[in-house]
This record gives sequence, structure tokens and C-alpha cells, in this order.
Amino acid sequence: MTRETDTRAVEAANTAFYEAMERGDFETVSELWLSGHDGAPHSVISCVHPGWPVLTGRGEVLRSYALIMANTEYIQFFLTDVKIALAGEVAVVTCTENILSGGPAEDGAELGPLVGQLVVATNVFRRTFDGWKLWSHHASPVLTENDEEESQEPGS
Amino acid sequence: MTRETDTRAVEAANTAFYEAMERGDFETVSELWLSGHDGAPHSVISCVHPGWPVLTGRGEVLRSYALIMANTEYIQFFLTDVKIALAGEVAVVTCTENILSGGPAEDGAELGPLVGQLVVATNVFRRTFDGWKLWSHHASPVLTENDEEESQEPGS
Repeated sequence: MTRETDTRAVEAANTAFYEAMERGDFETVSELWLSGHDGAPHSVISCVHPGWPVLTGRGEVLRSYALIMANTEYIQFFLTDVKIALAGEVAVVTCTENILSGGPAEDGAELGPLVGQLVVATNVFRRTFDGWKLWSHHASPVLTENDEEESQEPGS
Repeated sequence: MTRETDTRAVEAANTAFYEAMERGDFETVSELWLSGHDGAPHSVISCVHPGWPVLTGRGEVLRSYALIMANTEYIQFFLTDVKIALAGEVAVVTCTENILSGGPAEDGAELGPLVGQLVVATNVFRRTFDGWKLWSHHASPVLTENDEEESQEPGS
């Protein structure tokens, strides 16, 4: 496979990951993370959601996705600045996740209030015989200069 | 080399990185990042400091360290939860950086006020003929439940 083919395959896996999150498709998210069944038995996966501590291993990581999906009524990722660095069997993808999300409805409304979030992610993929799989995901909020003012609730 | 030897070498590189930061030793930090001179010419490095956007390439990344060092009078990292996942030529290290830091002094004081920070990091290392080198560093703040209250300045 050429370098270009690899890069395209990694980008497709990265996109598939976010699309599965948008659909709340736990099974696909689970399949996109490395497991012991894809020829890479020694891999311990790790995951950091924005503002969270590190989660390690499939048990912890997949439980976190189940929890996030249960508390997310609507989520959309607009990916920008996607950059892929390849080295043999491993790829490091960085991207900006422009997130629009809403929690479960309250007071009988159809959807909770929508919230915009600026998050950056570093996603490490490994080549397996079943395609490129996530080995590590680290996402974090981008803080803007006026975040401190914005975080103060009116009337506080 | 055995797996255990590799793991120890990766941990040593990770520790060396934080110790160089503590000393404000720009040259060593610079040497610990992948470059085109270590047999890994295709690697584009990436770096995310807590709350920052993604920085890509040695120019951007090293400038950010020069800037941080210029604005940091004192910094100490107490690393906990260091976990190393190895796969061939690449290692993913996760750790908690318990940071104590102080900016430049104001009003003739010897040191600015010390600030504690809880940060988690994912550090990706690559094996080179010159040892394990950083390919990607992503650090982010761990937000605690009462962060919103704490972020409000007294009197605001």
C-alpha cells in the first residue's frame, strides 16, 4: 500500500469514529477501538474526554462512551484542521472538533439547549488486519481569552 | 531488546522531558522531540498545551516552549499514574501531571504566586537510533465538579 492509500484509510477511520458518535452507534465506536481480536494483543487503549482524567483499557473506555451517549440527545462534530502523521503501523491524527450538542430535554421540550464547544483531539491509530483502529484518543477544550468572563453566570 | 528494557527506556525519556521542563532547559526539551536528524524523517510532531489549540511541526512547537519558559519562573511536575503501552517502534505514555508553578515576580517579590494544576497528558514516543523521542504531546486540565465556583474571582 502506498503512503497516500494509508493516509486516506486513516482519515476514513477517523471520520467513521466521529460519525458513529453522531449516530450514538455504540457498536461501531466499540469496533473502532483496538481489541485483543485484531492481531494487536499487547495494546492497552487510553482515552481522555474534555476535562476528564485518563481512562485506560476497553472496560473503562467503552463504559465512558455508553455514559456519554446516554446523556447526549444530539451531537454533531464539524472537523477542521485534520492532520495525519504516519509512521509504519501507527498514525497520529490531530483535528479540531467543532462540537454542537444537546442534552436530554427538560420540562417536556423536544431537546435540551444546544451548546457549542471548541475541542482539539489527538487520535492515535494502529494498523490491524481489520483496518486502522484507535489506540489512544485525547480531547481537550480550547480556552479562549474571555473564557474566564464567560464562565461567570449572570448574577454571580 | 526486551519489552521490559523498552518500557524502562520510554519511562526514562518521559521523566527526562519533565525534568528538562523543570530546569527550563530548552535545549534538552528540543532534543527530546523528534527531528529530521534521528532517522525518522517523515514525522510531523504535534503538541497541545492545556487549553491551547494544536501546534504542528518543530517550529511552532519549540517556539511555544520558549514562550512558556520565558513566562515561568518556577515549575514542578509530580507525575502519578504513569502508564506505558508499547507496540514495536511506538509507545503511548499516559500520566497525571500534578503541577506546581509560579510566574515572574511582581512588585519586587522574589516569586509570583504559586498555582497548583491538575493536568493529564498523553505522550507518544518513537524509537530512533538516538533513543525514544516525542512524536506527540497532548496535555489537558482535569476539571473537578466545583471548578465553576472556583473560577469566579472574589468580588466578581
